[in-house]
Amino acid sequence: MSRTFPADSVGLVTPQSAHFDEPLELDCGRRLPAYDLVFETYGELNRERSNAVLVCHALSGNHHAAGYHADDERKPGWWDKCIGPGKPIDTNRFFVVCPNNLGGCHGSTGPTAVNPDTGRIYGADFPIVTTRDWCRSQRRLGERLGIRCWAAVVGGSLGGMQVLQWAIDYPDQIKHAVVIAAAPRLSAQNIAFNEVARQAILSDPDFRAGHYAADGKLPRRGLALARMLGHITYLSDGAMREKFGRELREGKLSFNYDVEFEVESYLRYQGQSFVERFDANTYLLMTKALDYFDPAAEHGGDLATTLRAVEARSLVIAFTSDWRFPPQRSREMVKGLIDANKEVSYAEITSTLGHDAFLMDSPQYMRVLGNYLSRVAAEAGT
Amino acid sequence: MSRTFPADSVGLVTPQSAHFDEPLELDCGRRLPAYDLVFETYGELNRERSNAVLVCHALSGNHHAAGYHADDERKPGWWDKCIGPGKPIDTNRFFVVCPNNLGGCHGSTGPTAVNPDTGRIYGADFPIVTTRDWCRSQRRLGERLGIRCWAAVVGGSLGGMQVLQWAIDYPDQIKHAVVIAAAPRLSAQNIAFNEVARQAILSDPDFRAGHYAADGKLPRRGLALARMLGHITYLSDGAMREKFGRELREGKLSFNYDVEFEVESYLRYQGQSFVERFDANTYLLMTKALDYFDPAAEHGGDLATTLRAVEARSLVIAFTSDWRFPPQRSREMVKGLIDANKEVSYAEITSTLGHDAFLMDSPQYMRVLGNYLSRVAAEAGT
Repeated sequence: MSRTFPADSVGLVTPQSAHFDEPLELDCGRRLPAYDLVFETYGELNRERSNAVLVCHALSGNHHAAGYHADDERKPGWWDKCIGPGKPIDTNRFFVVCPNNLGGCHGSTGPTAVNPDTGRIYGADFPIVTTRDWCRSQRRLGERLGIRCWAAVVGGSLGGMQVLQWAIDYPDQIKHAVVIAAAPRLSAQNIAFNEVARQAILSDPDFRAGHYAADGKLPRRGLALARMLGHITYLSDGAMREKFGRELREGKLSFNYDVEFEVESYLRYQGQSFVERFDANTYLLMTKALDYFDPAAEHGGDLATTLRAVEARSLVIAFTSDWRFPPQRSREMVKGLIDANKEVSYAEITSTLGHDAFLMDSPQYMRVLGNYLSRVAAEAGT
Repeated sequence: MSRTFPADSVGLVTPQSAHFDEPLELDCGRRLPAYDLVFETYGELNRERSNAVLVCHALSGNHHAAGYHADDERKPGWWDKCIGPGKPIDTNRFFVVCPNNLGGCHGSTGPTAVNPDTGRIYGADFPIVTTRDWCRSQRRLGERLGIRCWAAVVGGSLGGMQVLQWAIDYPDQIKHAVVIAAAPRLSAQNIAFNEVARQAILSDPDFRAGHYAADGKLPRRGLALARMLGHITYLSDGAMREKFGRELREGKLSFNYDVEFEVESYLRYQGQSFVERFDANTYLLMTKALDYFDPAAEHGGDLATTLRAVEARSLVIAFTSDWRFPPQRSREMVKGLIDANKEVSYAEITSTLGHDAFLMDSPQYMRVLGNYLSRVAAEAGT
C-alpha cells in the first residue's frame, strides 16, 4: 500500500540527470571535459515556457528540494515548506527546477565522481568552482529543458548568491531575482569561520590530501567538526538559548569530557550524521565558492556599478536574528540595486531563529515570498 | 649592558612559587594531595596589608601579567598596559599578586605536572577544576603572603568570573570586585563554541586520551583549531573587517586551499604559535571551568539571591562590540547586584575591538578603571 502525501506536497519525485559533453570553462582556468547535473523538477512547464523557477541550493543542500524519494522517506526535501501546490513556490503555477551544484556530492559531477581523464575518482583533483561557474552550468541545464528565460531564480544563503550572480551574468534570462539571507560578499569573520572548518578537514590525518576515497578512508573527525562549527553560525544565540539553555543531559555535572549540556549533544549529533551524507572535498569547495563570491570586485568593489547590468526585478529577504548574513548585508544589496536604478523590494523578517530561518516557514516570511511569487506567476500568465 | 624599561613599567620581574602541602578538596569530589602555585607580584605590600590587589587571568593567561622576565624579552606580561607605576592598577600604590591558575601549564600544578601518587605526568588524570576551586587555592596563596583581605580582586573574561566567585565565596576578604568583560554564566552558544574547540582536541589522534606527553606526542592540529576558533570569538566582526577586510595575501585568488585571505594567515599563525606555549589538557579544563561557572545555580538560577552574600563594592565593565560576553551579560550581573542591594558601578565602553578590548588600553577604559582603583587605593590608605 502506498503512502498518501499531504495535498500541498509534490509527493513522490524522481531525480533526473542531464549529461553535458561540451566542455565547461571554469573561473579557475581549468575546464571540465564533460559533466552531469542531477536535478529535480516539480510542476509543469507551460506552453509559453514562461513559468520556470530555478531554485539554487546552499552549502550543504542538493537537488532534493521538495517531496519524497520513496514512500518510506521520513523527511521531505530541504525546502518542502516552500515548494508545493499552494505553497509560496506554487507548483500548480510554476515549473520548478532544482539542480545539485557542480562539485556537489549527490549526483552531479564533483569530487566523488570519476575523472574521465584518469579513470580514477577526482577527490582533491576536482577543480574549485565558483558561483559564476554554477550559473554557467545551470544555464545550460535551462537550455536543455527548453527554458529561455526564468520567471524567477530563487535561493537562500549561498543559493541567494547564485541568484545575484544570475541577475548580473544573464540579465535577459531572469525576470525576477529572489535573494534570501545572503550577502554581496563574505566578511572577514565569515571567511574566518570557513577557514577553521577547512583546516579541521585538511588537518584530519584521514583526509590524505583529499584522496581519502581512493585510500578507503573518510576524514570523519574533520568533517564533523566543520559541521558543528557551521551549526553554531546557523543558529542565533537566542535560538540556542531557547532550544537548549544550559540544560544538562544527566541533570548534573560529570566532570569529564563526555556530553554534559544538551547543546553539546545536539552538535555532536549534527556533526556525526553529516559525515554519513556529505563529502569532505565538496564541503571544502563549497566554502571556497562562498569566500570567492564578490561580484563587485570586478568593479573595484562598487556594487552599484556591478548591478547596473541587472534587468531582473528583485526581492531581497533578511532575518533579524541572522548573524551569519545579517540584515545589514542584505541592505547593502538593496542599496546597490537602488543606486543602480533597479526595482527592488526588501523584507526584513522578524525571527529568533538565526540564519536557519530561511529554511523555516514563519507566516510573515511565507506571506512575503508567496505574495511576491504570486505576482511573478500572474505576470508569467499562469 | 642591561635594558632600560619605560618609567611606567614594573621592569624585570621574577616569578615566585608557593608549595601547599595541605590537600585541596575540589568541587569534582576529588582532592589534590599537594600543589604549587606560581605567581608574580608587583609593588610593595604596605604595613597595614591593606593594599593588595589580586589579578585573575583568563582562559589562556598566566601569572606573567606585567613587566619582563628578561632584558631581551620582546613582549611584556599580558596586562602590562594596565599594571605598573602610574597605570590604572598602580604599582606605586598597590601590591599586585597574579597567580597562574591551578590546572594551568605555566608553573602551577596542572596536567603537565607530575602526579605524586603515580610518579607520572598527570595528563588527562588531572581533575577538572572550577572557578570556586581556583578561588579556594588563591585564598590560601593570599594567606601565605599575609593578606587577610584584598583591597580589590580584578579580572577580565574568565578572570572576571573568578572575581564574582571571590565576592560570593569570601565576602569578608574582598573590598572591591572589578569584573570586566564577563558573564554570570555561559550561554548555550558560548558552550557550543567551547565544545567544538574541545572536540577538535579530543578527536586529534595525537591527543591519545590526554596522555600525549607520556607518548611523546602533542595534539597540535586540535589545539591549533581550538585556538583559531577562539580567536574568531575574541574579535568583533567589525574589528576583523578593519584589520583584514577581504585582502588577499598574493593579490589574487589561487584556487587551492593554501592561505589566500589575510584573515586566514592571521588565524593559522595564531593557532600554530599557541601550540608552542599552551597545553591541550589545560585548554580543555579551562573551557570546562567556563562552562561550569554558574554561581546562581545553587539558588535555582536566581542571581540576586546568590549575590546577597556579597559585601564588596563592585565595578562591572563591558565593551560594546564584545559578542562573546556582550554588555547585556554584564548588565545581568549589575541588575543582580542592584536587586541584592549592593553598591555597583557599571561602565559600558565604546569599542570596536570585541572581547579582546579588555586587554587593550583605550582611554575611556583606562580612565574608568584608573579612577575607580584610585579611590580604592585612597580608601586603603595608600
